[in-house]
Amino acid sequence: MYFAEPVAKLIEHLGKLPGIGPKTAQKLALYLLEIPEEEARALAEAIITARKNTKYCSVCFNLTDTDPCAICQNPGRNHRLLMVVEEPKDVAAMERTGSFNGIYHVLHGVLSPIKGIGPEDLKVRELLLRLSREPVEEIIIATNPTVEGEATAMYLASLLKPLNFKVTRIAHGLPVGSDIEYADELTIRKALEGRRVLE
Amino acid sequence: MYFAEPVAKLIEHLGKLPGIGPKTAQKLALYLLEIPEEEARALAEAIITARKNTKYCSVCFNLTDTDPCAICQNPGRNHRLLMVVEEPKDVAAMERTGSFNGIYHVLHGVLSPIKGIGPEDLKVRELLLRLSREPVEEIIIATNPTVEGEATAMYLASLLKPLNFKVTRIAHGLPVGSDIEYADELTIRKALEGRRVLE
Repeated sequence: MYFAEPVAKLIEHLGKLPGIGPKTAQKLALYLLEIPEEEARALAEAIITARKNTKYCSVCFNLTDTDPCAICQNPGRNHRLLMVVEEPKDVAAMERTGSFNGIYHVLHGVLSPIKGIGPEDLKVRELLLRLSREPVEEIIIATNPTVEGEATAMYLASLLKPLNFKVTRIAHGLPVGSDIEYADELTIRKALEGRRVLE
Repeated sequence: MYFAEPVAKLIEHLGKLPGIGPKTAQKLALYLLEIPEEEARALAEAIITARKNTKYCSVCFNLTDTDPCAICQNPGRNHRLLMVVEEPKDVAAMERTGSFNGIYHVLHGVLSPIKGIGPEDLKVRELLLRLSREPVEEIIIATNPTVEGEATAMYLASLLKPLNFKVTRIAHGLPVGSDIEYADELTIRKALEGRRVLE
């Protein structure tokens, strides 16, 4: 033990966080011991409060401190337009753009045969249940443009189309500000497939 | 606000940590909300416990949960050999090598005219006081091999030599496993100056 026991323990706990190696854990621990006590305490309390006061919305399964969440409760949002995303962080990313005014449904994962994740592990049944009582017309599937995200999109489309919803998928293509030269072939192919008439 | 308020607050607090940007803060916050509650609570409690139960040793000013610290209290250590370091993390680095059996004195910084840090901001007076009552014979100055660390070493040497202590400085030279080709000129010059007879 090269540090006093409470310090060693703090380093150990910080080292369990994703992407935090032993050196960073040590740096963070010593930082937390240096700053004013109330700042360190504020972080500790923020962890406990966030755990205590957040849950998943019983409607859309986004992280929330009210149930239903602020978005589901908001009559100003378009409840006819529902976007399906993988994780709460995708809701945050979408909200940041300010360009979507519909409501969300968070799957909490994607289908992955390799990891043994099937539809029953995602909020799919909850989505169908919800669609049976809500006035949704269009469903935008905004899972990530990865193999698993695509497979999940396909699966959901096959499930939802027969129920007469308009099912759409966010566009694939070249990211704004990127270089065609450095784009991968699949992205270029998708960008070509998704081409639009300039008017 | 793209996340529920307690989540946003947690992200904000995590984002204040050194080297943690907004993206990492978001990742860490969502991770802390996903793991079992007791693990998140354990981290929060480790922060509070570390703050409550650690202080600086009143003798050597290292971080400790007992006063004097375990090293200062240990009769098995050589109390005639004292190493001066900048920070508690340097004590940990030195202890990890297992090659030093003396005692320490932590300065808590280095002299820096630019940042306005003078001897009165470091534990220098405490060092002199300590030396007047402890049986120290040799003082190893192990401040970092930086401009400020060097200046601090010079200053301490000028202070301690007239008091008839043997004052030494850790060696500068090429790090083990490094390449002469890529070493900077100053390091090579120091390595030459510090050359030793092979016997």
